[in-house]
Order: sequence, then structure tokens, then C-alpha cells
Amino acid sequence: MRMAILELLRASADHYLSGEEIALKLNVSRTAVWKHIKELKNQGYEIESLPRNGYKLLGSPDRLLPELVCRGLDNKVIGCQMEHFDDIGSTNAEAKVFARQGAADGTVIVSESQNTGRGRLDRSFFCPQGGIWFSVILRPDFLPQEAPKCTLMAAVAVTEAMRDFGLDAGIKWPNDILYQGKKLTGILTEMSAEIDRINYVIIGIGINAVIAPESFPEDIKDKAGSMSMFLGKFDRISFFRAVLQHLETLYISVKKQGFGSVLKSWRDLSVTLGQDVKVIGINETFTGRAVDIAEDGGLMVDTGRETCKVYAGDVSIRTK
Amino acid sequence: MRMAILELLRASADHYLSGEEIALKLNVSRTAVWKHIKELKNQGYEIESLPRNGYKLLGSPDRLLPELVCRGLDNKVIGCQMEHFDDIGSTNAEAKVFARQGAADGTVIVSESQNTGRGRLDRSFFCPQGGIWFSVILRPDFLPQEAPKCTLMAAVAVTEAMRDFGLDAGIKWPNDILYQGKKLTGILTEMSAEIDRINYVIIGIGINAVIAPESFPEDIKDKAGSMSMFLGKFDRISFFRAVLQHLETLYISVKKQGFGSVLKSWRDLSVTLGQDVKVIGINETFTGRAVDIAEDGGLMVDTGRETCKVYAGDVSIRTK
Repeated sequence: MRMAILELLRASADHYLSGEEIALKLNVSRTAVWKHIKELKNQGYEIESLPRNGYKLLGSPDRLLPELVCRGLDNKVIGCQMEHFDDIGSTNAEAKVFARQGAADGTVIVSESQNTGRGRLDRSFFCPQGGIWFSVILRPDFLPQEAPKCTLMAAVAVTEAMRDFGLDAGIKWPNDILYQGKKLTGILTEMSAEIDRINYVIIGIGINAVIAPESFPEDIKDKAGSMSMFLGKFDRISFFRAVLQHLETLYISVKKQGFGSVLKSWRDLSVTLGQDVKVIGINETFTGRAVDIAEDGGLMVDTGRETCKVYAGDVSIRTK
Repeated sequence: MRMAILELLRASADHYLSGEEIALKLNVSRTAVWKHIKELKNQGYEIESLPRNGYKLLGSPDRLLPELVCRGLDNKVIGCQMEHFDDIGSTNAEAKVFARQGAADGTVIVSESQNTGRGRLDRSFFCPQGGIWFSVILRPDFLPQEAPKCTLMAAVAVTEAMRDFGLDAGIKWPNDILYQGKKLTGILTEMSAEIDRINYVIIGIGINAVIAPESFPEDIKDKAGSMSMFLGKFDRISFFRAVLQHLETLYISVKKQGFGSVLKSWRDLSVTLGQDVKVIGINETFTGRAVDIAEDGGLMVDTGRETCKVYAGDVSIRTK
């Protein structure tokens, strides 16, 4: 009902719509209309009420509400189920709960902020309001060995969306998205699997969308950046929608034809390939040139003596 | 205290031990001793009480109680934490709960019976009393891609223990243990992982130990067997201890040197290699000869035209 009232207000655009008209059209009492309008205002919708004229929608909240994100989104999988939170420990943790309860392929959990957001290797991740913090639950039928490539897929989707918005970002292996050396996005992929079957994959994506540079904690200030630092203010909701669109296209392609086109796009968007890199692995540290990404998602590093495939650890690009 | 009383009873062997002696030695009241003895009897310990002489231990319960299984077990990892249940939904499900709560590497969850036990591909698994139904939580530091080989490791451990007990069983790829064509064991490995790090691996192992052949459900009667069908009655507790010992040896070796020795043992114990097999995969069915197991755990099948690596699905051995 609330959504129906919202649609009527949207449709009437600049005209005022009286409570009586709404009540008649939707076959509810005027009191009910009044209550729903109040609820919409609580959610952040700006609705003007004039005693004689009725109601007019002036603005929507800057919140990643499913009803706003999904307007005009034609996805068949990604985001068709979406749960929104104002604040949450971590969307990945919440997504696991949903996944265990049987949430559908493509379910999205999104929050305005996270208080225990974390990145790879248990590093904490700064997740204030203005960012886009979400997790996607996937239930693909490929083998668990393929799952790490979901991270590459997510990185490609977000980078493509950034480029749509005029930000010429690139991907640092495996899952950082950078612009002018600043990290704009972190991705943390987790999975639950049996030996030859994935139960679910959860891709956690944190995007520093509209965040003032001065609000970053001291220890990450040099390395972290936000989209708004470079783009100025932009529509976070439209951008999130674009990310979900790109993710849908890639995921459908992966399901049909495997990761070939994801790897191709990843290579095109990479800032790591062709660079001299330092690899800090679990047991060893070495340097070499990043030459390619392998079919299984590993980064191929030519040390001069041999070509190593790197799956884990940190890879930093060496400045000359 | 209960365990201390049990130890005293064991130490006194054929002699009666008076409540007063026990109370003195352990510095507790005679009433406390009496209560603990009563509790031990409830657990299935056979303890004779003679009014003038005191207590004598006649027998231990045929239950996989940690205090019984761990007697004489010198493991440093596997089974050092052990939780015992009389009946449970599934030990894998319970192990996940423990793992999420931070259970240590090597923690074992064991149950006398399972009411929702399941095998690969969600197939249900018959898990009555007399079997050995357990799950091991591992927290290895190898990459998630290696995890499927934990299944091979478990199959080797159980088969080696069976051979110790005089049963010349073999492994059918990837995780069935057979003797005279009857399936004695099922293994279901699950994991929770990030892209380059395992959170935990859970190896669920179900062994048809002491189960009367006539108690198997009609639909699996032809294919399933139990150890007791071939060995007669044997000590389930000692056998479980042997499995945990072999698992410890293999796991320590894997942690130090990788899966090389597991694969070598697997090859030696395999009933699949060298056989003509039918592979029923997700999307295709084909036949060929199983020629080897690859370093990554895949079964290599020579179809005559090419050698395929099989990771998933069912592989049946073709009788000539």
C-alpha cells in the first residue's frame, strides 16, 4: 500500500494529490492514507502536505532502499531479492544468515553503514554512511574451484559502473579498485561448499561512494579515496543500480559460458598487468612482472627465472 | 571427579574399592562418591556395588565417549577436543555451529546415531546405532583449492584403520570405501572459505561399523555393508581410535609437506584406478579407463580419445 501511494505521488509529479483521491483510488480510508504518508516521511521521503490541496512528493531519501534502487532495474537474478539495513555489523555476516535460510540466487543485502565491516585477512574496513556496503548471495552450479573468480567478476562490474559514471578506475589484483592510486572499493568473497558443489558464494562489496576525504581514519588516509573526491556529489542510488546491472550481465554470461569474458574484461581494466610487482605471500616474498591472469584466476608473475602463479597474499605495484 | 573415580576403579581392577577409600583418596564425601558412581552407571558403566566390599568396574559402555576413545590416543590435533552426542541431526551441521564459534583445529563431533545424516548431493544416509558417525573440524592454512583433497585424506585414514583391523577394504573415487563391492563408509567434506583462505573444513565421516545386515533399508541393501558383516563383532571404540590416529598422522604430514603422501597412499588403496569406469557428470556421461589421480585430486579418465579430469559427479566401476 505504501508503495502504491508513493507511485501515485510520483505519477502526479508537480500536482498536489488530495488524501481523498488517494483513498478512493486505492480503496482505503483517508486515515490509512494519512498513516502511510507519515510512515513515508519517517523513511526520509520529502512530502509536502497542504491542507486544501493535498500531498506532493518533493524528494526521495538518499538511502539505498530496494524500492528506489530497483526502479528501472531490469535484472532477473541480481537484486531481485533485496534486504536493506540502516546499520549492520557486516553485510557478509548477515548474508550468511540469509543464505543458510535458503535465500535465492542473486539476493542482495545492503546497508547504509557497517560497524564491523572487514576486508581480506580480517582487516577492518571503514564503512561510514555515504558508502555503498552490500553483499550478493550467489548459488552458481560451477565447481568450488571456480568461486575465487567471483571476486574478479565483482571487480569488473564495479569498475565498469565507475567508468559509466566517468571515473576511469582500474583493478589491482585481485580485488582492489583504484583511481589515481586511491583505493575506492574492497571486495571480500566467501563461500560455503562441498567437495564438488557450491552451497553459496557471498560477494561482499564495499564502495567508498560519497565520503568526505577528511573523514577517513588517519591510518588509511593516504591510501583510501572516495568516488565523490573525484566526481563531486553524484547519485549513489543510480550508481548502485548500475553496479547491479553490470553484475547481472556478467553473472548471466558466466553461468552460460564460464568466466572467459570476465577474465577478458578484467585484463582490460587491470592496473596490475604489465607492472613490476612485489608479492608478499604467506611464506615468501618476491618481486617480478605481472604478465597475465591465468584461466583459474591466479596472477602470473614473471620473476625473470620463472613464471609463478599467485593465488594469495598481497601484491603491491612497485613505483619506479 | 567422575573421571578420577573411574580411573581409581580401573586401577583397582579385580579388587573392590570401598566408598570410603575413594572418598579419602579424592578428598570428597562418601555421598559425593555415591552420586558420581550412580552417574557413571547411568552412562552405561557396569559397576558392581557390594555393601561390605565397595565398588568394582565390570565393564565400560559401548559408546564413543571421549574418555574411552582418547585412552591411549597420543594425538596432538585430531580429537584433542571431542564432543559426544547420543543422537543428533547431523554431526556436520553440529560441527558447523562449533566451527563458527571458534572450535580448534582437529575438534571432533561424534554421535551414536544421526537422524538427518546425509551424503554427497544431499542424498540421505542411514545412520543407526552401532555405526561411527563423526565430523572433524580442520583449520588448515593451505588454499581453498586444496580442500577437496581432505576427502581423499579421510578415505585413506579410514581404509588404513580397516586394514589394521584385518579388513582389506579399498577406495572408490572419490570417497566411498568398499569391501567385496559393499559400501562401508561415506565421506562428506564441506568448507567455509574466503578467496585465499580457509575458514574451516569439516570432514563428515560415516562408518557402518557394527550394523546387522538385515537392518539396512531395502533400497540400499544390495550396495551397503557393515564392517561387522565381515569381521563379526569387534571393538568399535578401538577402531574409532585407530581412525583418529591415522587421520592425525596424515594431517600432520599434509600440513608439513602437502598432499603428496596422501595421494600416494590413495593410489595404493584405490579400487578405481586401472578400471573401466562410467562417469555421470552434471552435464555429460562418458566411459573410459581411470588411469590416475591428479595432483589436484581430480580423477584422470582416459576415454581413448583424450584424458579427462573428473572433479564431480558419480564414477561407477564397470563390471566386465
